[in-house]
Amino acid sequence: MNSPPLPRLAVTMGDPAGVGPELCLRLLAAAEAGEFTDCLPVVFGSIAVLERVADRLGLPRRFPLVAEPAAATAAAVYDVCGDGLEAIKPGLVSPAAGEAAYQYCDRAIAAALAGSVAGIVTAPLNKEALQAAGHHYPGHTELFAERLAAERSCMMQYADDIACSFVTTHVGYAEVPGLLSPARIGEVLDLTDAALRRIRGRAPRLLVCGLNPHAGEHSLFGGGEEERLIAPAVAAAVARGIDATGPVPGDTAFTPRARREYDGVVCMYHDQGHIPVKMIAFDRAVNITLGLPVPRTSVDHGTAFDIAWQGLADPGSLFAAVRLPARLAGLAVKAP
Amino acid sequence: MNSPPLPRLAVTMGDPAGVGPELCLRLLAAAEAGEFTDCLPVVFGSIAVLERVADRLGLPRRFPLVAEPAAATAAAVYDVCGDGLEAIKPGLVSPAAGEAAYQYCDRAIAAALAGSVAGIVTAPLNKEALQAAGHHYPGHTELFAERLAAERSCMMQYADDIACSFVTTHVGYAEVPGLLSPARIGEVLDLTDAALRRIRGRAPRLLVCGLNPHAGEHSLFGGGEEERLIAPAVAAAVARGIDATGPVPGDTAFTPRARREYDGVVCMYHDQGHIPVKMIAFDRAVNITLGLPVPRTSVDHGTAFDIAWQGLADPGSLFAAVRLPARLAGLAVKAP
Repeated sequence: MNSPPLPRLAVTMGDPAGVGPELCLRLLAAAEAGEFTDCLPVVFGSIAVLERVADRLGLPRRFPLVAEPAAATAAAVYDVCGDGLEAIKPGLVSPAAGEAAYQYCDRAIAAALAGSVAGIVTAPLNKEALQAAGHHYPGHTELFAERLAAERSCMMQYADDIACSFVTTHVGYAEVPGLLSPARIGEVLDLTDAALRRIRGRAPRLLVCGLNPHAGEHSLFGGGEEERLIAPAVAAAVARGIDATGPVPGDTAFTPRARREYDGVVCMYHDQGHIPVKMIAFDRAVNITLGLPVPRTSVDHGTAFDIAWQGLADPGSLFAAVRLPARLAGLAVKAP
Repeated sequence: MNSPPLPRLAVTMGDPAGVGPELCLRLLAAAEAGEFTDCLPVVFGSIAVLERVADRLGLPRRFPLVAEPAAATAAAVYDVCGDGLEAIKPGLVSPAAGEAAYQYCDRAIAAALAGSVAGIVTAPLNKEALQAAGHHYPGHTELFAERLAAERSCMMQYADDIACSFVTTHVGYAEVPGLLSPARIGEVLDLTDAALRRIRGRAPRLLVCGLNPHAGEHSLFGGGEEERLIAPAVAAAVARGIDATGPVPGDTAFTPRARREYDGVVCMYHDQGHIPVKMIAFDRAVNITLGLPVPRTSVDHGTAFDIAWQGLADPGSLFAAVRLPARLAGLAVKAP
């Protein structure tokens, strides 16, 4: 009797000039060594780049190749795009690298929509390169949300000891207040609650941050965003059965005591949650896009152009990103 | 031969309805036990309140009293104001408590200007109570800056393992971008460099945060504040001989690696620095107002109305705040 096939995960290689290629090499080696027992990673990347990086780092340059993602029965590479990549240099922004990074995502989305992969894991892309290639997405999160036609989605950063989800992410500091609304905050509360229920196996306790210093201190600071926008969203979520508390001052949401008492924090803007996550779980935290039809996770770090192709990048965050989707319910839908 | 007299520090009791009174009781006990060897704390507070709190907590209610601050030759209480305090209840905002908290500061400032004290340490006040009493300061920092006629000043949070100074502090989230300028950022860089030179005894290495996610990622996000306002200020500071790096993304400024490599971080807004400080040094960090003619420090926490008068408040931050001024050069000026 054969055991059921493991669900396939598309792992996009990210910007070829960043640390993505070497992380994928580490991943393939770890998969060959049997480190991933509940999924089957398929690297969506460029063989030509993987070979150049492998040569540079003295790593083996033989990879199991598949002609199409659905053909993979073990960890493998699906060669997506090599055009114009010969000239790519580590650490340099280029439209060719941006285009390649986009193509890896594009093919992974197609494979997910076709049911060939049960989840997507992304290595970091460079937003400047992406824009230079004519793809005007602020980041992965928005690209996947649009292409996978998510009605509502948000970014979450997850490690077992800290989890933050975001009402706004890759927008300018000054744009944040205009993007807050009870509806959007409620959406993020719903998505966060649902995801942490699956990961934790129980109803999570959520904290919701305010926007202003001291959460506005009863409207002494700021435009009353806490009273007008955040508090009504929290009250409505509580009425829906979500265990949510807030708005609380951002600087009290991550103290050791708060981290013991709450399972997740809903943040109003990027740095409000990224500062504490990077302090506590640098190289361990996983980025998840919540609300998509398939789970999509990514590493928590950037392209790290300064150390690209040197073999210095820690694959810990990528490995964690590969392991997390199996803990989300979406993976119960096995790939055919 | 007598040793020279220890410099006197004014310790303001803060809002009488908060944890200030019990912290002052702990301080007086610790001082009597000989815990402060390089300064002489004088509590600027209300005897009537200290007695009520002492009774409630079962602590001794005998305190050394002085009729005027300059008369103190050991740790003592200077009874400032008792009007209307009979009705004060722990944990409740009231104009009477706000007025008392203001008066403690007012007398401490007068004592500093008269040379009777060589530094000021403040227990937390409640900003709502302060405003209810008709004193329209956003907080201690601004009150002291105005009354001590500081040409330029800024807030710093200090612990030996993390130090942040702030370009803006107690203003609404949305007001921050309009308050940034190369001149103001340069001022904060100067004040931070000077303070850390004194505390560390060498030229400090400073990091300067950006405002937008990823420090704007080369103007992809935000209004170009990094390029227009922050980078020129950093370049000018470097030209003045300050070891400053930035702007860097806020979420990379507090990683374990960054904290090992830099002595201090210049933050653009309140929560950018308060989140990491409260995570790492809750109950240990000290607030300093830089740029004043006398050193002024304060506890890093609020009035904690929820646990006031219960004996639960940790005096660690107040003790640290009392010890820090002696490490700043201002205290070389001994009180007469």
